[in-house]
Amino acid sequence: MTSSFSLSHRLARALWQLSWLLLARWTPRPLHAWRVLVLRAWGARLGVRCHVYADAVIWAPWQLTMGDDACIGDAAEIYNVAPITLGARSVVSQKAFLCAGSHDHRREDFPLTSAPITIGVRAWVAARAIVLPGITIGDGAVVGAGSVVTRDVSAGCTVAGNPARVVRGAAGKT
Amino acid sequence: MTSSFSLSHRLARALWQLSWLLLARWTPRPLHAWRVLVLRAWGARLGVRCHVYADAVIWAPWQLTMGDDACIGDAAEIYNVAPITLGARSVVSQKAFLCAGSHDHRREDFPLTSAPITIGVRAWVAARAIVLPGITIGDGAVVGAGSVVTRDVSAGCTVAGNPARVVRGAAGKT
Amino acid sequence: MTSSFSLSHRLARALWQLSWLLLARWTPRPLHAWRVLVLRAWGARLGVRCHVYADAVIWAPWQLTMGDDACIGDAAEIYNVAPITLGARSVVSQKAFLCAGSHDHRREDFPLTSAPITIGVRAWVAARAIVLPGITIGDGAVVGAGSVVTRDVSAGCTVAGNPARVVRGAAGKT
Repeated sequence: MTSSFSLSHRLARALWQLSWLLLARWTPRPLHAWRVLVLRAWGARLGVRCHVYADAVIWAPWQLTMGDDACIGDAAEIYNVAPITLGARSVVSQKAFLCAGSHDHRREDFPLTSAPITIGVRAWVAARAIVLPGITIGDGAVVGAGSVVTRDVSAGCTVAGNPARVVRGAAGKT
Repeated sequence: MTSSFSLSHRLARALWQLSWLLLARWTPRPLHAWRVLVLRAWGARLGVRCHVYADAVIWAPWQLTMGDDACIGDAAEIYNVAPITLGARSVVSQKAFLCAGSHDHRREDFPLTSAPITIGVRAWVAARAIVLPGITIGDGAVVGAGSVVTRDVSAGCTVAGNPARVVRGAAGKT
Repeated sequence: MTSSFSLSHRLARALWQLSWLLLARWTPRPLHAWRVLVLRAWGARLGVRCHVYADAVIWAPWQLTMGDDACIGDAAEIYNVAPITLGARSVVSQKAFLCAGSHDHRREDFPLTSAPITIGVRAWVAARAIVLPGITIGDGAVVGAGSVVTRDVSAGCTVAGNPARVVRGAAGKT
């Protein structure tokens, strides 16, 4: 397994991680505005009033887009090897894992693969859920705690389980 | 999303977190008696010989009740927005997540909701399992590692999976 | 619940944890060769070019065997109460949990039980997956992110879900 990234890319990420450690990781909970500034300085496109908790783990801020009032909870992991976009007022709860990277295990060199993830407006990815590469979560959809989302989720639906299944349709029917 | 808690409540929790960090987080594994003292000082109702590991995360000790010999493992999360009660000799293993809080995602302001969790006498919530708000786990029941419990579990049953299903009934039949 | 381990065993593990903390935990990502040296000094049998990330958690290095080019990712947990063996070129991704220990909950004293885990050559246990005691993952098999593996996985198969099911057979058929 060789690294999938150039030396300059890896240096940039090491520097980013160091920045977050020194500037953000220890900051008190309410200082979202400050952490947003740090993320923007590193290329994140963030709307107004975004909340990013201090223990959130963002792989590459330059691949992160968040709409107004979007929220990334404590220890949530944004593994944005490919771009990840969070819609306005969406919430990614504590320890959820948006995983935009995978590997092609059929090839000897196990190369990294990736595909963007999109979380819709007012959608909610609950605690410890996992969203796999290439997935789109529709507007207002809900992903239950601890679920693993392997297919796109339609707007307004609630999914849960591993693999995640629809437990409540867009019309509120179970 | 506005905070669901008063300023005084949030200050109390910040102070509690600081207390745990300074007084307990770094303490050697065997010092359960000391950590129990710290928890009791913050309002937890704990029986004798309780074990609480140093990396356990307890949201609000004043909402925690543990019977004699109950155990909270390393990095287990007790998210007791509502009261959480652990029966005597019950075990919550490492990184398990007792989640007594949720959100009403249908409302614009995404308000916090909560419901108490009760773990029965001699019940076992194995590693990395998740127990959702309002759930009761019966006496002697077992929740398999990594399971997500969405319904009450009867006494003596073993459940596993996501969503968790009964894999062994109270009489030991599969 | 009494400890299942002798005092000397527990002291050895405390010393091992301290060693990793002082010598390895803070080391920059590329220093795999150094961390391999530390593990070998503590009795791990490791092939050439093994990668072990700094945040990996290894319970007992003297119960760990890794073939050439095998990899243990960030914050993966190797709970090797019983021996755990990783085949050559196998990958255990970030936060995966190889859990070789359990408890006999039917007995009053809740004794530890354990059974070895074997991960095959070129097999991949993806992020946040859980592998239970006694499981063998065949050569070239893949365990999907967040899965919980409760049965042996045949060579070349892909499994996913909780409980994990075969989603792609050895011949590549879905």
